[in-house]
Amino acid sequence: MPALNTDLYQLTMAAGYFASAKTEEIATFELTVRRLPTTRNFLLAAGLEQAVEYLLNLQFQPEELDYLRSLPQFQSAPAAFFEFLSQLRFTGDLFAVPEGTPVFANEPLAIVRAPLIEAQLVETFLLSTFAFQTAIASKAARCVIGSEGRPIVEFGSRRAHSPAAGILAGRAAYIGGCAGTSNAEAGMRFGIPVFGTAAHSWTMSFPDEEESFRALQRLLGDSTVFLLDTYDTIEAAHLAARLGPPLWGVRLDSGDLVALSREVRRILDNAGLRNAQIFATNDLNEHRVAELVHAGAPIDAFGVGTQLSTSSDAPALSAVYKLVELKRGDTVHYTAKFSGEKSTLPGAKQIYRYPSCDVVALYSECNSDFQGEPLLRPVISAGVAVEAPPPIAKLRENAKSAIAALPEELRSLEVAAAYPVEFSPHLLELAETVRERQLVRS
Amino acid sequence: MPALNTDLYQLTMAAGYFASAKTEEIATFELTVRRLPTTRNFLLAAGLEQAVEYLLNLQFQPEELDYLRSLPQFQSAPAAFFEFLSQLRFTGDLFAVPEGTPVFANEPLAIVRAPLIEAQLVETFLLSTFAFQTAIASKAARCVIGSEGRPIVEFGSRRAHSPAAGILAGRAAYIGGCAGTSNAEAGMRFGIPVFGTAAHSWTMSFPDEEESFRALQRLLGDSTVFLLDTYDTIEAAHLAARLGPPLWGVRLDSGDLVALSREVRRILDNAGLRNAQIFATNDLNEHRVAELVHAGAPIDAFGVGTQLSTSSDAPALSAVYKLVELKRGDTVHYTAKFSGEKSTLPGAKQIYRYPSCDVVALYSECNSDFQGEPLLRPVISAGVAVEAPPPIAKLRENAKSAIAALPEELRSLEVAAAYPVEFSPHLLELAETVRERQLVRS
Repeated sequence: MPALNTDLYQLTMAAGYFASAKTEEIATFELTVRRLPTTRNFLLAAGLEQAVEYLLNLQFQPEELDYLRSLPQFQSAPAAFFEFLSQLRFTGDLFAVPEGTPVFANEPLAIVRAPLIEAQLVETFLLSTFAFQTAIASKAARCVIGSEGRPIVEFGSRRAHSPAAGILAGRAAYIGGCAGTSNAEAGMRFGIPVFGTAAHSWTMSFPDEEESFRALQRLLGDSTVFLLDTYDTIEAAHLAARLGPPLWGVRLDSGDLVALSREVRRILDNAGLRNAQIFATNDLNEHRVAELVHAGAPIDAFGVGTQLSTSSDAPALSAVYKLVELKRGDTVHYTAKFSGEKSTLPGAKQIYRYPSCDVVALYSECNSDFQGEPLLRPVISAGVAVEAPPPIAKLRENAKSAIAALPEELRSLEVAAAYPVEFSPHLLELAETVRERQLVRS
Repeated sequence: MPALNTDLYQLTMAAGYFASAKTEEIATFELTVRRLPTTRNFLLAAGLEQAVEYLLNLQFQPEELDYLRSLPQFQSAPAAFFEFLSQLRFTGDLFAVPEGTPVFANEPLAIVRAPLIEAQLVETFLLSTFAFQTAIASKAARCVIGSEGRPIVEFGSRRAHSPAAGILAGRAAYIGGCAGTSNAEAGMRFGIPVFGTAAHSWTMSFPDEEESFRALQRLLGDSTVFLLDTYDTIEAAHLAARLGPPLWGVRLDSGDLVALSREVRRILDNAGLRNAQIFATNDLNEHRVAELVHAGAPIDAFGVGTQLSTSSDAPALSAVYKLVELKRGDTVHYTAKFSGEKSTLPGAKQIYRYPSCDVVALYSECNSDFQGEPLLRPVISAGVAVEAPPPIAKLRENAKSAIAALPEELRSLEVAAAYPVEFSPHLLELAETVRERQLVRS
């Protein structure tokens, strides 16, 4: 991913920091979500692995620098600035909450501490990486809550925001608890289970439905899934019953899924196909899945597409990346923004998780003053990865346990009261000090 | 973009088509949007250039084939199938509506005619490419309608669905009428104007606001934009007034934008800075922009971020890719799906645009039978591009003219009655014939 994939102002600021002799200053930025969407009781952190990969490989290409030189905004930037950019690598530190950890508003998902220009430049990429995958993992967790244990497969690549987003949606959905994805590239790249058998066009490409079903059985054997609704769902269910094994099951993709699943179940059972599974798709989301489960629809697994891969009820998180500390020489300056609802708290922070609340404290506070589990861990230190990323199956397992440990009302699809996130007295004191100093100054 | 970036079922079907000796069959698929989102009176087609690039470069890499061989779904696929895939290129035809063309529900944005396996394989990539960029271009067009001529800059990379999506959002927003984007990579790759000056962290990284503003002026000269709301907007406006030129203008990013823009305008004017522009950002969308314009807020240009780059009120289009024809030997079979609200119409189609309606007819109908302008044009013929893609500035100009030619009620932010899209008698007749044939068969 090119270093130039950032907001232009990161680069004009870089030129300005360079011209203002601020290249030696060490900045600390934190990445937080300002507010949870009203339809999310928690978020599930995701995107870290891609953030790390980006930081470790950050490097401008000559053509990117040529492009910048050509822009009006850089006409007064000195040649030395472009030389500086050509040598730029990420040499700083990254602290982050592990992927698959439930997080809440105002909790830092990641903290970057690096020379000011580096830390500033990476804002755009880090925000979109963390916010997007976190949004999808969080939505996936809700779908899994709705299905009460029945497997959910992520099927939304075709509606994702670009083909590249589809791959990452598959990854994030798996971390969030999905059984797998339909995206083959996500399967290869991340080692995620992949699912898929045939579309309506398969059925339509044969002279008749029976021939198409037989051809599928020859191909897939026990993995065969008959898609029933190309012409008439019930007729197709009778055909499936008549054909019998080999068969994994059938898929319903339109109509009244409660009534159809019951009728199809009856048809399959009457033919002795009690082990044949019923898989349902059709613009599902966590609520629709929960309704089907509560209605007792005999559906064994669900495919969730568009509404998962776009997190369509909450397609964007209010993720922000804010300067909280700046070290000039030996002095650390704590910084914050005091603009009403967009205010921030100064200082690098740590999150401590207690059984029924989180406490956000200054990173510099003593760990042993807190009994809670510290959530942010060092991931990159002086430009070098601290350890290899954990296997994705482990992230998914961790997420499952961590979600199970949340208070029950948060593990509901209903809107719950906000989880208590407290701020340590030291942090609040620092915020007050910074605010007073700024009031005096302005 | 790897060939493996597709839904797995495209590949299992490919194996099945191969095993069923269907490699010589020529399929025609059409890509349409089933329904417009309720908050869209028209869509603006976009994404074609990336679709073409993908089709022209489609090729499996050896590691992708190794991965497929390892999957349970391909254990009974013959070795010849993988050899076939390794040689696979896109050898078919693509017809498409030019980017920047307004389109409506059930109108094909693109038609693929190719050997069945090729045409099937590319579904996932084409859907996400066309649907995402079309969604963003359409949202951008609404923002431009809302601003009544004031420039809109796309600022949403940080909230886009992955860093790669941010680049494409910048592209699509420009086609939709934005003045440019903040995404530097989009600027380089697509030749789009790029904008950006400084963030709150710039101000916060200096000992005081005045020093930060002066440093910005030294860097950017006449392009300087002071971001006013890091500490106190009005204080900062007074500071800007005191500093005077060089200055392009100021940016407001929080608070009551109507009141603040008036007050800031007054402060700037009183200092003789009548040419200084006021640029506004802060979670804007087309409605908010229109409200600000109608309230007479003295805002000269807008930055629209999250809600544009995610099309947040309509984050997914109901785009589908359906088999409409299949040629076996010398016989063309027309295909359609008859499942209630998800039914499709058979046959490759053309759209004819009349002054106050569109007519969708069979592609095989005689052009000269229609006075309307045919919208679908050949783009790839037998695997070769028919012509170089048009310059993006031309697409943007075409979009602007085409939108201006739409009935006035469609160029409103209010929900308008659906634009009349009629189907030719021949097309409806064919649909009836296919339906009857299928009823007889089932």
